[in-house]
Amino acid sequence: MYDGKKISRYCAEALISAGAGRREAETVAEVLLNADKRGVHSHGTVRTEGYVKCLMSGGIRGNTEHTVLNDGPSYALIDANGALGIPVSVAAAGIVIEKAKRSGVGIVNVRGSHHHGACGYYSIMMARQGLIGMAMSTGDIIMAAAGTAEDSIGNNPFSYSVPAGKYGIMCYDIAMSTVAMGKVAIAADEGRRIPLGWMLDRDGNPTTDANSYKYGGTMVPFGGYKGSGLAMMVESLAGILSGAALLKDIHAWNTDPEKNGNVGHCFIAVDPAVVHPGFDVPSRVEEMITELKSHRKAPGVEKIWFPGEIEQEKLKLSEEKGLELPPATIHALCRTADITGLPFDPEEMEDRR
Amino acid sequence: MYDGKKISRYCAEALISAGAGRREAETVAEVLLNADKRGVHSHGTVRTEGYVKCLMSGGIRGNTEHTVLNDGPSYALIDANGALGIPVSVAAAGIVIEKAKRSGVGIVNVRGSHHHGACGYYSIMMARQGLIGMAMSTGDIIMAAAGTAEDSIGNNPFSYSVPAGKYGIMCYDIAMSTVAMGKVAIAADEGRRIPLGWMLDRDGNPTTDANSYKYGGTMVPFGGYKGSGLAMMVESLAGILSGAALLKDIHAWNTDPEKNGNVGHCFIAVDPAVVHPGFDVPSRVEEMITELKSHRKAPGVEKIWFPGEIEQEKLKLSEEKGLELPPATIHALCRTADITGLPFDPEEMEDRR
Repeated sequence: MYDGKKISRYCAEALISAGAGRREAETVAEVLLNADKRGVHSHGTVRTEGYVKCLMSGGIRGNTEHTVLNDGPSYALIDANGALGIPVSVAAAGIVIEKAKRSGVGIVNVRGSHHHGACGYYSIMMARQGLIGMAMSTGDIIMAAAGTAEDSIGNNPFSYSVPAGKYGIMCYDIAMSTVAMGKVAIAADEGRRIPLGWMLDRDGNPTTDANSYKYGGTMVPFGGYKGSGLAMMVESLAGILSGAALLKDIHAWNTDPEKNGNVGHCFIAVDPAVVHPGFDVPSRVEEMITELKSHRKAPGVEKIWFPGEIEQEKLKLSEEKGLELPPATIHALCRTADITGLPFDPEEMEDRR
Repeated sequence: MYDGKKISRYCAEALISAGAGRREAETVAEVLLNADKRGVHSHGTVRTEGYVKCLMSGGIRGNTEHTVLNDGPSYALIDANGALGIPVSVAAAGIVIEKAKRSGVGIVNVRGSHHHGACGYYSIMMARQGLIGMAMSTGDIIMAAAGTAEDSIGNNPFSYSVPAGKYGIMCYDIAMSTVAMGKVAIAADEGRRIPLGWMLDRDGNPTTDANSYKYGGTMVPFGGYKGSGLAMMVESLAGILSGAALLKDIHAWNTDPEKNGNVGHCFIAVDPAVVHPGFDVPSRVEEMITELKSHRKAPGVEKIWFPGEIEQEKLKLSEEKGLELPPATIHALCRTADITGLPFDPEEMEDRR
């Protein structure tokens, strides 16, 4: 068990040493830590290393304010000016909450941004205020759009959250590939084959070879053309409408850390208190979940979960019992220490409770 | 080849004879005909029979105006008062277009409604005005939400449309099941097995038996929990926020024609001209499609299609060469004649050009 506060403090210091402003570094560290607490380690503090590399090589501009290019009662358009993706997204989510509370619905677009972590964080911010929220982002091309044989579109994450009464918050947070690349990499490490429908090989044929991604393979959208079309929706709302880079022009921050990705985001919020005054949306969402949970379970299913329930339970557990971190995260933080010169001692990060 | 005008005139007269007002009947006939022209026969004039039965048995109230319950610059909440789903949806799409043009973004919710045909029709209405549009609807429970072994949620259709320059309109229009029930029924008729991932049998096990739906089987969401979570998003935005019926309380109009479904819809539109003035969204969408089409094709793929391209080409062909209708539609119209007493002669409906 680790002490989350110590881990996030280390991440913030590492980001500051790489050029981030204190406030933005602390915001990034908090959002990454939140993902770890929710068990979403792929989007947790493991990312600090990548952000630090980008900051040091100029792909992310540290200590940079965003610019509001256009602003109205229900909308805003923001240029992140090449800064870190997380702080501008936290700001944009805050703005869209205000817009929705005033106008019933709001949309905020961001361009010139960078990787913004788990997009569920932002829709949960909206749901905490009683709103129905959506957050989405473009990314560099790592998936084969329907019909194509190679990387042609990002796996463009999308999330929505709704307040759910006694169930807390229902948070749906997905990428458009059948599975995350991390799962393929783990199967490759363990010498296992992968199911058909996860990857195409370099010729565009479905493959069960987990190593295919090392040899020009590409990820498959979930549900074929249905997931592929959703990736295009996100590209349109988060990328095109924002005026961000499109498809192959989005630089991959892990392979080209020195180039700004010009990633685009989109945040949409709806306030039920304005659109449908006096109506208790959280209670109805609670009813929906209760009804779904009351059904016969499919064979092998122990519990019917609602979207985000597992992560919400994990978050509670992490806050009560301390933070679990996988070896990959600890290794990445040790590499971050090598890069920044800020010492990182895993033993010192342990939870002493 | 059939004459679309004659077919839609027949449908309108049949609806009027069952109690619909002339204007609403003509709107329904036009929207159903449009689906047939686009090759989406499952949502075409074949539905006239069902609507007529509901009108005659009281499950749909004919000649009924909707009520605007709440109205603001960016939102509206509408009660359809148990009327036909299509006319109120056309009206709601018109209203959300106005809201978005004034406010940048708009949301219109509808409750007390009924089946509204292909929801792509409404998002295309928005895209024709230069907007990015979304339309979605609840439906009666015919699909197993992730983890459940039986019917527990609707296959809750969702669509978005974006203007796409020389490509016309990109229109994504899906239901949340892996495939439409119609495809399973066709396989059953032809004595074929279906792939795993389409249906669960009555015990909740994956099955290749196309007949399973006749014996308590249920449809599977596309992409497992990912499609299942999208169905819950639609249930939240279209059903809950509207104050419509929820899950099992939505009456199945084909089995309970005399009961009003209290279906809910949600329409969202964004006007790029307000949110991002001077920016040419259709040209960028065109660039996106051109780039996607430029990629290597997967083996066996002859053409890389964008969402809605096949239907758009079919529409053009239908308008130039006449309307093709499957036998199932003709049979349904003949049955409509039996129910209403309005004679239907397929030969008289032929295109004489």
